[in-house]
Amino acid sequence: MFSERITGSLAAGSSIRAMFEQGNRLKKQYGEENVYDFALGNPDPEPPASVLEDLKRLVSEPGIHKYMPNAGFPDVRAKIAAYLKKETNVDFTENHIMMVTGAAAGLSVTMDSLLNPGDEVIVIAPFFGEYKGYVTNFGGKIVPVPALPGTFGLDVPAIEKAITSKTKAMILNSPNNPSGAVYDEASLKALNAALERAEAAFGEPVYVVSDEPYVKIVYDGVKVPAMSAIFKNSIIVNSFSKSLALPGERIGYVAVNPQIRNADVLMDALIFCNRTLGFVNAPGLFQKVVADHLEDVAGLEAYRERRDALYEILMDTGYECVLPKGAFYLFPRSPIEDDVAFCDLALKHRLVIVSGSGFGYPGYFRLAYCVDRKTIQNSKDAFAALRKEALGK
Amino acid sequence: MFSERITGSLAAGSSIRAMFEQGNRLKKQYGEENVYDFALGNPDPEPPASVLEDLKRLVSEPGIHKYMPNAGFPDVRAKIAAYLKKETNVDFTENHIMMVTGAAAGLSVTMDSLLNPGDEVIVIAPFFGEYKGYVTNFGGKIVPVPALPGTFGLDVPAIEKAITSKTKAMILNSPNNPSGAVYDEASLKALNAALERAEAAFGEPVYVVSDEPYVKIVYDGVKVPAMSAIFKNSIIVNSFSKSLALPGERIGYVAVNPQIRNADVLMDALIFCNRTLGFVNAPGLFQKVVADHLEDVAGLEAYRERRDALYEILMDTGYECVLPKGAFYLFPRSPIEDDVAFCDLALKHRLVIVSGSGFGYPGYFRLAYCVDRKTIQNSKDAFAALRKEALGK
Repeated sequence: MFSERITGSLAAGSSIRAMFEQGNRLKKQYGEENVYDFALGNPDPEPPASVLEDLKRLVSEPGIHKYMPNAGFPDVRAKIAAYLKKETNVDFTENHIMMVTGAAAGLSVTMDSLLNPGDEVIVIAPFFGEYKGYVTNFGGKIVPVPALPGTFGLDVPAIEKAITSKTKAMILNSPNNPSGAVYDEASLKALNAALERAEAAFGEPVYVVSDEPYVKIVYDGVKVPAMSAIFKNSIIVNSFSKSLALPGERIGYVAVNPQIRNADVLMDALIFCNRTLGFVNAPGLFQKVVADHLEDVAGLEAYRERRDALYEILMDTGYECVLPKGAFYLFPRSPIEDDVAFCDLALKHRLVIVSGSGFGYPGYFRLAYCVDRKTIQNSKDAFAALRKEALGK
Repeated sequence: MFSERITGSLAAGSSIRAMFEQGNRLKKQYGEENVYDFALGNPDPEPPASVLEDLKRLVSEPGIHKYMPNAGFPDVRAKIAAYLKKETNVDFTENHIMMVTGAAAGLSVTMDSLLNPGDEVIVIAPFFGEYKGYVTNFGGKIVPVPALPGTFGLDVPAIEKAITSKTKAMILNSPNNPSGAVYDEASLKALNAALERAEAAFGEPVYVVSDEPYVKIVYDGVKVPAMSAIFKNSIIVNSFSKSLALPGERIGYVAVNPQIRNADVLMDALIFCNRTLGFVNAPGLFQKVVADHLEDVAGLEAYRERRDALYEILMDTGYECVLPKGAFYLFPRSPIEDDVAFCDLALKHRLVIVSGSGFGYPGYFRLAYCVDRKTIQNSKDAFAALRKEALGK
């Protein structure tokens, strides 16, 4: 038979993807417009028109569809390095950049490059459930540390307590999926001080793997602090899935902080893993197009409007929720303790939502509001009825 | 520090990629036109004009850049299933097809889905060196069985002898990289009989993983037998890197034979691994375009001309070589026993070639002739001088 490790994991699956499939089934049954599907972070806007125009032009550029070095086209890597240097004041060059097949690929390749069997990777709960696979696939162990209740900010003392001699890395994800939290500079600097104490104590750095697909999706004048400027042992994993609305095309990059000791060896390891895991290289056409759209962001104002509209509905119908400053998710408290049961009940009201348990944070649920305005507007009665039924009123 | 397993493997690297980089260095030093680079199977033709036209049109299709199910767009999978059914008479449906990020991804995900620790995977030497990583990454062990000397055909008795209770799969690659051999139907049927005897003896099937990127690159009226029609326990891994000259875009598919016991579980495992290894889904735009170009092949006549031209040069300058019926490689015998030393010496003559040792078959070297005509024409003196120097004449 097949791999026991894999077939044994099939039942677990991804709670997000399972709900995505449930939503598709409901839509077939009741019609698209009668289902309120907040399951998947699948950006609703199309890519910016200038991106589409450039794609049309680049399609015919000679050589663009051929193999290139495994790390990506050198000119693309140089443009990204220049952009990061400008943004962070850190001395990135093209030799610190590897193009990857989306942030998921970037995280997978990074963990393959870093982890020895038994190594621990700290994540802040709630966290994107897929992190677990990216770590355990390479013999690592995930160590969740809960975020601060209420704000979902960093609990630095709790993180420091969780660090052991086996801690190889921690994953930061700000703006956060699913909470939408943006970590402020003060807490990040406090975290950096804690990591420096740990390095002094254990003699090895704790690498900060910063998963940043939402770094441009922020509201109310908030700016995400540059992780590369704060953490010298940082590895940035970015993607254009959200900023340019290209999630199906799988394009992103990994940027290794030049201050990492033996950064060149780490780059060689990343390039090796990119090849040997079967990615080979990031898709060439999309490498070229993103390099000329590093500052762009698709649909930001529409996201803000939808955030506000959905938040208002939740407030009006009696839910508890923090208004987040980033990403395109709300993470309200479940009216009943069992968030999984609550999300199952939601399907009866044709609401497709994902339980906090899938993000290592029970008692909450996630709403992806990157959906059309009508879906949000029409969902109000369903949210009200769901809460009422859940509370047995 | 970083992963010991990975940093320990860095020195080994890929002999093809190492030569590719050497070639680029020589070109900078001597000028592009003075280096005869036969290192990399990087198709020289551009994709067919109709593919480029379709890409331009598809770029603006609403929704095409969004997430889709992890297995790929359902309409794309249905088109591929219909094509395979027509070609093989096997009852493929869209539920047997998963779109992948190139054949390398397909092989990686397939091995992740199949292998338990210690499982053995038979490969026919000479073989594409990357197979080793795709197998060992998931705890498997590669078991090379040499091809028949002279023809590079299947040595069925030797394969049968290599099968043990730990044999989970074998990888077939016809047309073969690096030998260009196309396995004939009689030897494949003999192999199938051997695999059926093994299944009866050990109680478990040996899965045939057929890596078919060159299946359309064949000459002299040869047709590649349909593996799905011969082997009921077959998993086809295909890519459009060579047939449509899109190697940098990473697009292909995996097709699971409907006759495999629990084929649905295997499909679930493949989709799970595609997600959890970080591929998520194959690039969406290229999924859509390949589905409408399943019959096309770029540059076949030009490849044949180049094969003949390079073969003639080798004959004229005293090399020993079989004229292959497929792929775009020649695999001549090294004039001296040490093929690695021979390939190093070749660099002195500005010839960039890859040693057979990198393919598990010492004493030979590989020439990728998917290069421009001039490179081939101008290389004759270098091949002659190289042979002379190698033999100490």
